[in-house]
Amino acid sequence: MMVNGKHFRSIWLEEDNNVVRIIDQTKLPHEFVVAGIKSLGDAVVAISSMQVRGAPLIGATAAYGFAFAMRDDPADSSVNDACKKLIGARPTAVNLAWAVSEQRSAVSPLPPGKRAQAAFERASAIAEEDVEINRLIGQAGLSLLEEVASRKAGSPVNILTHCNAGWLATVDWGTATAPIYMAHDQGIPVHVWVDETRPRNQGASITAFELGQHGVPHTVISDNVGGHLMQNRMVDLCLVGTDRTTAAGDVCNKIGTYLKALAARDNDLPFYVAVPGPSIDWSIDNGRDIPIEQRSGDELRMLTGKTSAGSLETVEIISPGSPVANYAFDITPAHLVTGLITERGITEATKEGLARLYPEKAG
Amino acid sequence: MMVNGKHFRSIWLEEDNNVVRIIDQTKLPHEFVVAGIKSLGDAVVAISSMQVRGAPLIGATAAYGFAFAMRDDPADSSVNDACKKLIGARPTAVNLAWAVSEQRSAVSPLPPGKRAQAAFERASAIAEEDVEINRLIGQAGLSLLEEVASRKAGSPVNILTHCNAGWLATVDWGTATAPIYMAHDQGIPVHVWVDETRPRNQGASITAFELGQHGVPHTVISDNVGGHLMQNRMVDLCLVGTDRTTAAGDVCNKIGTYLKALAARDNDLPFYVAVPGPSIDWSIDNGRDIPIEQRSGDELRMLTGKTSAGSLETVEIISPGSPVANYAFDITPAHLVTGLITERGITEATKEGLARLYPEKAG
Repeated sequence: MMVNGKHFRSIWLEEDNNVVRIIDQTKLPHEFVVAGIKSLGDAVVAISSMQVRGAPLIGATAAYGFAFAMRDDPADSSVNDACKKLIGARPTAVNLAWAVSEQRSAVSPLPPGKRAQAAFERASAIAEEDVEINRLIGQAGLSLLEEVASRKAGSPVNILTHCNAGWLATVDWGTATAPIYMAHDQGIPVHVWVDETRPRNQGASITAFELGQHGVPHTVISDNVGGHLMQNRMVDLCLVGTDRTTAAGDVCNKIGTYLKALAARDNDLPFYVAVPGPSIDWSIDNGRDIPIEQRSGDELRMLTGKTSAGSLETVEIISPGSPVANYAFDITPAHLVTGLITERGITEATKEGLARLYPEKAG
Repeated sequence: MMVNGKHFRSIWLEEDNNVVRIIDQTKLPHEFVVAGIKSLGDAVVAISSMQVRGAPLIGATAAYGFAFAMRDDPADSSVNDACKKLIGARPTAVNLAWAVSEQRSAVSPLPPGKRAQAAFERASAIAEEDVEINRLIGQAGLSLLEEVASRKAGSPVNILTHCNAGWLATVDWGTATAPIYMAHDQGIPVHVWVDETRPRNQGASITAFELGQHGVPHTVISDNVGGHLMQNRMVDLCLVGTDRTTAAGDVCNKIGTYLKALAARDNDLPFYVAVPGPSIDWSIDNGRDIPIEQRSGDELRMLTGKTSAGSLETVEIISPGSPVANYAFDITPAHLVTGLITERGITEATKEGLARLYPEKAG
């Protein structure tokens, strides 16, 4: 997608295989800084410090970090060391563990001398697979937006989204944003209501930055506003991402998603979720069985922004001494979801619907 | 209510009638500063700069400001001037216009020499009437909390509230908080989930400050969390205030209230609204007929907090160049409201229910 008029991915390998470039997301939206990863250690730091975030991007970064480790030392002990360090960088990231496991499988059968090349190839394949999944989600979702646009006689399709399920969370396109970018690029008028997404404000910072740079009309709102907009028919559809979706279609996503799904239902508006196949948890049917991570209260208590002098400053915004709680995700039950947009097409959010798209998984 | 172990109201007249004391709410929660109002001009500044906020407190402040104007100059021209300046300080505040109108009615029939005393008396009466309304709301709501407590065998009654409908928005007790303070003071274990309430963060700053100072157990959460808590039975009831309630029970309150009402309904939890009689708009039945104020986008874009060095700093937190929208209120339809808690008792949120409590208004 575009930044300052130039096309970027969120991660790319320089042609000499000596450096992977990333966008330092801890500096967004106030500064656009491209950083370099040249070693396993750099990759671990980029992941743990959240210079990269978003499950697919974390996975791709880990895969490249592993490849650097193989370049520097392809011995079995180095394989074990790299796996351990990468997984420790963000212990709860499912894609991270998956990418590391893919790399271990790719290099373990090989003699040390062939491991580096195989690891770079697998890392690039992981990145390309993510781009392809998102492109296919985009194409499937585009049909929905085209259908809404056909009823709106040239006025914009109003989409409400929550958090960042954009290209900066993936390698390119994003999940929930892929249909939006494709519609925009094709000249379909779209306008996105961007939930601020407290407490980490990924909507106000990352999603708004992405859409703005790519030229997609959008408006940032507080998380409290979506219900009012839906009551007043200022939203045509909701479109969000997911961290994990159960085999029966319950959607685990950033905290607050459930409230928007309730408002969509109360106002007879469609609520869609962009679901990459790898994020479906085939071992669970009921969303209630997904443990909800509680994160540091400082994410709510402290906030970083830009001062009038232009520097970044962190300030405390909660009454001192008051306890805080920071539940990071919630569950939107499948019955509130109009449809799941996957790389294999759109399905109703049911066990049967998902099984039809992924027969090999639903066994 | 208590601050630093001492009882305060949000506004009080010193015994010599020369100064009205207020708590400068622009400094909360980081500093507790008592400020003085000694003239009409001081009152106008306190209202327009939001040192005082909350409809009843604005009304009381305006009434005292008018009294100072009469003390300094009781002529008819001064009456007109005071009314104009006070109403201009916050043009959309209904209680402000009401308090000014009350004062004009109180002094207009009198000779100039008797106007100052009458205005001070009416100002004190307006403050006392507010305290009494909130005390009666507290007693009515207390019965609800007692009833929930009786089913909880000593574990805390968990109440979710939004924004600040506390004593700092009124003269004392608050509206939604009055039953909570009374229950706490009587030894009923309560715990309050305090919505941060973006974009002005009145929950995280004012409500959390109030509850903390009075010793009421509470936890601040982002506005996104309430649905998750209700799904997991961590809330026993929702209890919020209102800026305006229609004759048929539709509730206009701080933006985001509607989303919590939806979550309460989806989880079969009670959703109560504390409604002072003066906030009922008998001229409107349908909440859709209430215009929703859009406020400055800077309320969302900029945020003030305390730096690690201890100073207050304002930072920009939205992606630069991204448009923002700031709808300040929303409408919770009556059918989502379990009951309205008024100074005359609790009623279902219907035209008939409100008419039974206020037959003289519903005529």
